[in-house]
Amino acid sequence: MDALLEKGKAMATALAPSPSLTLSRRLAQTPFTPRLEACGVRSYTIYNRTLLATCFHSPEEDYRHLKTHVQLWDVSCERQVELKGPDAARLAQLMTPRDLSKARIGQCLYSPLVDEDGGMLNDPVILKLGEDRYWISIADSDVLLWAKGLALGMGLKVQVTQPEVWPLAVQGPKAEELMSRVFSEAVLSIGFFRCQHLAFRGHKLAVARSGFSKQGGFEIFIDSKHLCLELWDALWQAGEALEVRSGCPNQIERIEGGLLSYGNDMTRANTPLECGLGRYCHLDRPIDFIGREALLRARDAGLKRQVRGLTVAGDPLPRCSQPWPVLAGCEEVGAVTSACNSPDLGCGIAIAMLDRDHWDVGNEVTLETPAGSCQGRVVELPFL
Amino acid sequence: MDALLEKGKAMATALAPSPSLTLSRRLAQTPFTPRLEACGVRSYTIYNRTLLATCFHSPEEDYRHLKTHVQLWDVSCERQVELKGPDAARLAQLMTPRDLSKARIGQCLYSPLVDEDGGMLNDPVILKLGEDRYWISIADSDVLLWAKGLALGMGLKVQVTQPEVWPLAVQGPKAEELMSRVFSEAVLSIGFFRCQHLAFRGHKLAVARSGFSKQGGFEIFIDSKHLCLELWDALWQAGEALEVRSGCPNQIERIEGGLLSYGNDMTRANTPLECGLGRYCHLDRPIDFIGREALLRARDAGLKRQVRGLTVAGDPLPRCSQPWPVLAGCEEVGAVTSACNSPDLGCGIAIAMLDRDHWDVGNEVTLETPAGSCQGRVVELPFL
Repeated sequence: MDALLEKGKAMATALAPSPSLTLSRRLAQTPFTPRLEACGVRSYTIYNRTLLATCFHSPEEDYRHLKTHVQLWDVSCERQVELKGPDAARLAQLMTPRDLSKARIGQCLYSPLVDEDGGMLNDPVILKLGEDRYWISIADSDVLLWAKGLALGMGLKVQVTQPEVWPLAVQGPKAEELMSRVFSEAVLSIGFFRCQHLAFRGHKLAVARSGFSKQGGFEIFIDSKHLCLELWDALWQAGEALEVRSGCPNQIERIEGGLLSYGNDMTRANTPLECGLGRYCHLDRPIDFIGREALLRARDAGLKRQVRGLTVAGDPLPRCSQPWPVLAGCEEVGAVTSACNSPDLGCGIAIAMLDRDHWDVGNEVTLETPAGSCQGRVVELPFL
Repeated sequence: MDALLEKGKAMATALAPSPSLTLSRRLAQTPFTPRLEACGVRSYTIYNRTLLATCFHSPEEDYRHLKTHVQLWDVSCERQVELKGPDAARLAQLMTPRDLSKARIGQCLYSPLVDEDGGMLNDPVILKLGEDRYWISIADSDVLLWAKGLALGMGLKVQVTQPEVWPLAVQGPKAEELMSRVFSEAVLSIGFFRCQHLAFRGHKLAVARSGFSKQGGFEIFIDSKHLCLELWDALWQAGEALEVRSGCPNQIERIEGGLLSYGNDMTRANTPLECGLGRYCHLDRPIDFIGREALLRARDAGLKRQVRGLTVAGDPLPRCSQPWPVLAGCEEVGAVTSACNSPDLGCGIAIAMLDRDHWDVGNEVTLETPAGSCQGRVVELPFL
């Protein structure tokens, strides 16, 4: 066991270098950064050129806390692309295969964005704020430029902007309780993936029941910089007895929950069908969107690969900072794109893109990790 | 003096936190990363979702070496957006106010890209590789999505892709000597901002006389991953007697040279005229580009602000990781966007965007730095 631990430590050192990060105006801090630093944030990633915390205590401790209590997440990196004007609805629909025609004001729609080849450009939540006003709450790519290019090229009557909005997520099983204390019980009436405007100190803020975890919670879209720390501190104070902590999207919890990460588990080289997002692709409805023909062709030809889960017994998995080959015998049949060790499942778990002949649940494959080979078994997502 | 040094150290600690960075497939290492790590890279930034080193020894030591010898820079983050097809030239021209009509094959053109409001979207070098083929060698924004959106929206006959190319820069006064040793004296015939295809081990690579320093040098566009380390090692071996080192764009040297950084010194909120890039805006030529009307209006109304240099005597300047207000009396008249201490000039130097009434050379202004106020004097760029 000691030898295993030593091996683990050596691996961690070899595989997870911690170079320091040079900040600049281009790579922005957020209004919340001072609170994160005060809470002892240990590491960051950069997301839409903005700091996003990745760890406070340890991935395992952050995970357990997230599944037990409530956390405040600075997700300022989740930028909003606003479409406003008579053609806003048309442009929003052009950008996604998800049918937006029956969306109601206040609805939040997880929507793959694809290009003319059906390749994933982003997987935002689209907030319908009005009949002629949408916010696209983006993952890590410049959707602003795509939307501006389309609007200009097609001569659409729509303004495409990136307003200054700093989303703050409140996630975990005690999120309802904490939010009620600060925003009143009005938060309880917000449906899943619905958004309402609620007052905080006289300022109306969009509050959605959404977030990048499966533990329940809310996202608050703060459009006034000076309110950021005021609201953070109010939530912090109201949450003391609930053991509130500063947190961030947790790699273990999101893999268990089967939440895909754009840029990691899916890229422009993947269609949403390959990413298991077929239920958001309304290919048989009479809607006009970019990539329609490509996705129809891909569907009719039959998928060649699709995303799956893998469970791995034995030694803990190392960090996956670049794709790992997946083999069946000597043949490469896919790639692992995210991996971690699940405390609650008691094994390694991974998200992989697998070829058709090998994606059936129960199939055995070999993962070529930087720490050596190991056996994995195909399962459906989510794990939990 | 000791007190000053102590103050400087305390400032450095307070102002330059070094959070660790979580890498993933989304934030990519490059083929050269192992060599950078072996050379003891101390810090990185993220640029186009790719690692870019920011320091090896110290900013001052890297600077002195760059101005004396020769360095290899991993600039893989400088992604190429390829335009190919009958409408490639038209799309390239639509994206920039610089007149590309007389560009020759093999020419490299530093070109501001602007949107319909004349706001800067990027400041790439455009390589004309053929009459119907261009590479846009981008700064930090997803020009790919802008170009794809325009092409699709306008129905242009052009393929817009991001080919896998890893640029390697060779910079410094001994760059010609080093390049000659590896690519033969053919490199000497490459003109400034011109590009030729030269052979390395039987593989033709595009080589340009360009780079993000004022010390002279080349950029090699490696389009075959396995050649990256082979070429690095060949240059390293050939450069031993020239004291070659691993390097990176150096903040001091680039500020001295007046090289602006997109995202820092200029953003979408600035026109290229404000950025001092008027010589690349051919507003009176009969060319068709996006933002023409906006730039003409801006020019005819008279600029309200423009980029300038500031020199600062006295205490060393701290790191500028977000804009510093510039005051005249109590009035805010601009912002510093980059700053450093120049060993060769013996003073602090800064790049600032200044209001018209205060931009004249010789004017005195006050910089509000996180370490306190100091006096600056307006100068023309570049400093050296």
